[in-house]
Amino acid sequence: MDQTAHIDTPPEPDGIAAFKHAFRRHAAGVVVITALTSEGSPVGFTATSLASLAAVPPLATFNMARAATAWPAIAATEWVAIQTMGARTRHLAERMSGVHSLRFEGDHWAPGPHGLPILNGVTSWMIGRIVERFPVANNVVVVVQIEEGALGEPDAALLYHERAYRKPGDAV
Amino acid sequence: MDQTAHIDTPPEPDGIAAFKHAFRRHAAGVVVITALTSEGSPVGFTATSLASLAAVPPLATFNMARAATAWPAIAATEWVAIQTMGARTRHLAERMSGVHSLRFEGDHWAPGPHGLPILNGVTSWMIGRIVERFPVANNVVVVVQIEEGALGEPDAALLYHERAYRKPGDAV
Repeated sequence: MDQTAHIDTPPEPDGIAAFKHAFRRHAAGVVVITALTSEGSPVGFTATSLASLAAVPPLATFNMARAATAWPAIAATEWVAIQTMGARTRHLAERMSGVHSLRFEGDHWAPGPHGLPILNGVTSWMIGRIVERFPVANNVVVVVQIEEGALGEPDAALLYHERAYRKPGDAV
Repeated sequence: MDQTAHIDTPPEPDGIAAFKHAFRRHAAGVVVITALTSEGSPVGFTATSLASLAAVPPLATFNMARAATAWPAIAATEWVAIQTMGARTRHLAERMSGVHSLRFEGDHWAPGPHGLPILNGVTSWMIGRIVERFPVANNVVVVVQIEEGALGEPDAALLYHERAYRKPGDAV
C-alpha cells in the first residue's frame, strides 16, 4: 500500500507546523473556567481544552500554561467552576479571554457554590474539585472531579474553529 | 446578587448527573487515535478528548479508560497517530468506535510513519510521541509531543454533540 496516496500535501517534518495545521482543522467546544484567589478575588479564562476523562466517578481535564494569570489561583485552590458557553454568551467567552482587569468588571456574573464566579446565561456549570495537577514542561493538566452543577439556559453550543466562534451545524 | 437568578434549573447535588448534563451541552471535535501493539497489530479508537496543551513544544493530551481494548498497546508503545476527522469520514469515526475485529478490516487505511495506521480521507494526521501517561482512578491522561504530520483532504470538521455527529455551522 502507498502510505501517502490519500494525503494531499507532503508530510510536515516540523512538529510545530504539523500541530498548528492539524488543530486548525479540529473544532473545539468553548468553556469558561473560574476560580478564586487565596484573597477571594475572581479569576477566569476561556478554554477549549475541556475533556471528559470518566463518567463514574465524574472526572474531567483541562490544560493551561503555568504562565497564565489564573495559574497561581488554580495552583492554590481546591475548587473551580467550569461553564459551558452558548452562542448567546459568545461575548462573555471573548471577555474572559480579553483584558484581565475587565473580566469581572460588571454584573455579568454572580457568586455560586464556594463563592465561585458563575457567568450569566451559560448553558451549564459544574463545580469541580481539583484532584490532580500534572505539570508538563511549562504547562499543567488539571484533573477535576465534578461535585455538583446545573443546566442553564437552552442555547446553541459555542465552538471555536478556524479562528472563529461558531455554533454546531447540521447532522452529517 | 442572587446567585442563581440566571439559572433555569435547580443545581444538581449529584456530580454524575451534573457531569452528564453539562457534557451534553458541550460540543467536541472528533479524532481517531491509532497505534500498534507490540506484535505490530493495529489498534485504534474514536475520541472526543483531544486537547491542545502547548504550541511550543507542540503538546496535546487525550484521555482514555485503562479498560479500553487499545490501552495495552498505548501503555507499551512510544508512538500514536492522531487523525482529525471530517464530515465525509464520519463512517470511519463510527467504525473506529464499533466492533473491534472490524476496525482495520478493509482498505480504508494504510501504514504511515512508524507503521502507524493512517485512515483514508482524514482532514489531517499528526504523529505523537508519548511523553507522559498520568493514571487517574481507572483512566489515564496521555500526553504526546507532535513530531510530524500532514494535512489531508479539505472537509468540514466532524463534531460530536447532543449524541449526533455534526459539522460546524455559522459563525456567531
